[in-house]
Amino acid sequence: MDEIITLDYGSGGKKTSELIDNLIVKNLSNSALSALGDGAVLQGAEKLVFSTDSFVVSPCFFPGGDIGKLSVCGTVNDVAMSGGIPKYLSLSFIIEEGFATGDLEKIILSIKKTAEKAGVSVVTGDTKVVERGRGDGIYINTAGIGFLAHNNLSPKNIREGDKIIISGTAGDHGTAVMLAREKNLVESEILSDCTPLAALSQELYPLGENLRVLRDPTRGGVATTLCEFVEGTELTVELYERDIPVRDDVSAACEILGLDPLYCACEGKLLCVVSPESAAEALSIMRSTEEGRNAAIIGEITASRPGRVLVHGELGTRIAAKLTGALLPRIC
Amino acid sequence: MDEIITLDYGSGGKKTSELIDNLIVKNLSNSALSALGDGAVLQGAEKLVFSTDSFVVSPCFFPGGDIGKLSVCGTVNDVAMSGGIPKYLSLSFIIEEGFATGDLEKIILSIKKTAEKAGVSVVTGDTKVVERGRGDGIYINTAGIGFLAHNNLSPKNIREGDKIIISGTAGDHGTAVMLAREKNLVESEILSDCTPLAALSQELYPLGENLRVLRDPTRGGVATTLCEFVEGTELTVELYERDIPVRDDVSAACEILGLDPLYCACEGKLLCVVSPESAAEALSIMRSTEEGRNAAIIGEITASRPGRVLVHGELGTRIAAKLTGALLPRIC
Repeated sequence: MDEIITLDYGSGGKKTSELIDNLIVKNLSNSALSALGDGAVLQGAEKLVFSTDSFVVSPCFFPGGDIGKLSVCGTVNDVAMSGGIPKYLSLSFIIEEGFATGDLEKIILSIKKTAEKAGVSVVTGDTKVVERGRGDGIYINTAGIGFLAHNNLSPKNIREGDKIIISGTAGDHGTAVMLAREKNLVESEILSDCTPLAALSQELYPLGENLRVLRDPTRGGVATTLCEFVEGTELTVELYERDIPVRDDVSAACEILGLDPLYCACEGKLLCVVSPESAAEALSIMRSTEEGRNAAIIGEITASRPGRVLVHGELGTRIAAKLTGALLPRIC
Repeated sequence: MDEIITLDYGSGGKKTSELIDNLIVKNLSNSALSALGDGAVLQGAEKLVFSTDSFVVSPCFFPGGDIGKLSVCGTVNDVAMSGGIPKYLSLSFIIEEGFATGDLEKIILSIKKTAEKAGVSVVTGDTKVVERGRGDGIYINTAGIGFLAHNNLSPKNIREGDKIIISGTAGDHGTAVMLAREKNLVESEILSDCTPLAALSQELYPLGENLRVLRDPTRGGVATTLCEFVEGTELTVELYERDIPVRDDVSAACEILGLDPLYCACEGKLLCVVSPESAAEALSIMRSTEEGRNAAIIGEITASRPGRVLVHGELGTRIAAKLTGALLPRIC
């Protein structure tokens, strides 16, 4: 392999084969991927969950992760939030000419490690190379297939009286990436929370219909996700700011950057709405896991202001709207 | 919607919802997509085929198609070549800030039309926006799920004596796109052959084990695909150049551009290798379809030069190697 990726590696010819054999198949090997057909033939299931995300995070290496780890977590988590046990991933690269081959290998090794942790296999893929100035290092798309394990997770199930739980601290990923961009200004030890949530979700599925909906608050953060739950309905989300776990350093950094942690992306946290009678059990299930050890009940569903998210804070109550504008471009 | 796509449309907030509702869901509507969860819940099957491709074709509108049509055909065809009946697509955009909203709508309508023709539903998706100068208009990823209908298509099945059939003329897509880039130099009526091959493939599956392998010769073209069939084996591909259908204008354009049609991408043709006793039947099946009306037997499998592709032409016999170098960057 050359030290940098040239356009040749995207030609579909010899160099493309070299990249696939030496970096991708070597590291992500499994029988479906190694067959190297146009597509992978896989064991199926009666009901499937299917999700995709493209990742354009900048910078592509950041504290606590990189675009490879993120591209596995993001899609695995979307499958898990939809009630699926993630099984297979597709992996597609759009690489800018001149990208360091060593960095590509680091990213692929990170994908390998994260996929193993999440229990998924990368079974099919694609690589394209674009000219210098037509990309930004590397963009990654993953699509994920899962087998359905909870067949009714939807904001439509939410009822008055339900409780809202978050599995841990809000805003870590968004803050870590923003600080990485400002690294000449600020020294920080804030890490992205980027992690697979498939195991945690599977612990929650047995709650059955008491588990109304699961969602990972990525772009747009906790506030935007909760707005989506109730917009256009008769229901209200009421949040208690003091109950929302936010790391002190995240809170301080957000203040400096002019951000609100409630709008900063998480990549390793889930929000769930559960029936009032299941709230304690859900919380205890979450706290017994590594990913959910800081879980907290942060609010409840009422009918006080239909379609709105209210945040009760130290200085009174405010309405949280959906994120407007590009507060945090290229955060994932 | 604004007239151009701004970074706001990728923020995950209000503008993202507007884009999804007004352009994507409105046009591609189906129950799974309209649920707008993190992932789609789908009817499954015992055996699945899964494939993905990212599309970076330049220009994104070209004679005979556009990046939207291509991004459906490319993935649908990969699923079909792997023995699957394509059912579901994911759709993910990476849009450069400043891209015209009207062009995005044209592309989405083209996706809609092509998906209908191919019998697939777009069930889940994602949209990212990158800053000006960090992309090139629009890049699209699709991943496709199909239900397995032929369970043993592989170059490993190829035997001495087998026949090689192509479903129509070679090199149309690659030539059309290259000419589109040189539009100030050349007037041309060559159209990309970009089309779904799922229906044609399904006609061939009943040939069972007599159908050894299917492949659509995209990047790298017919020559590179056939090289992949026999490399590292004891077998030889012997092609008869006079039997390979190539449009006269494609042949002339390739001469001007210094290209070989055998290395130019097709996006609506398939190569198949069939047992000698099934060759006539396969040819007649293909010729009875719209997509395969110009099908031709172009060569056979021997053992004369293990691992090699030989092309018998007017001026003698040459060895065709896999494409080296970036002959045709960003052709798909």
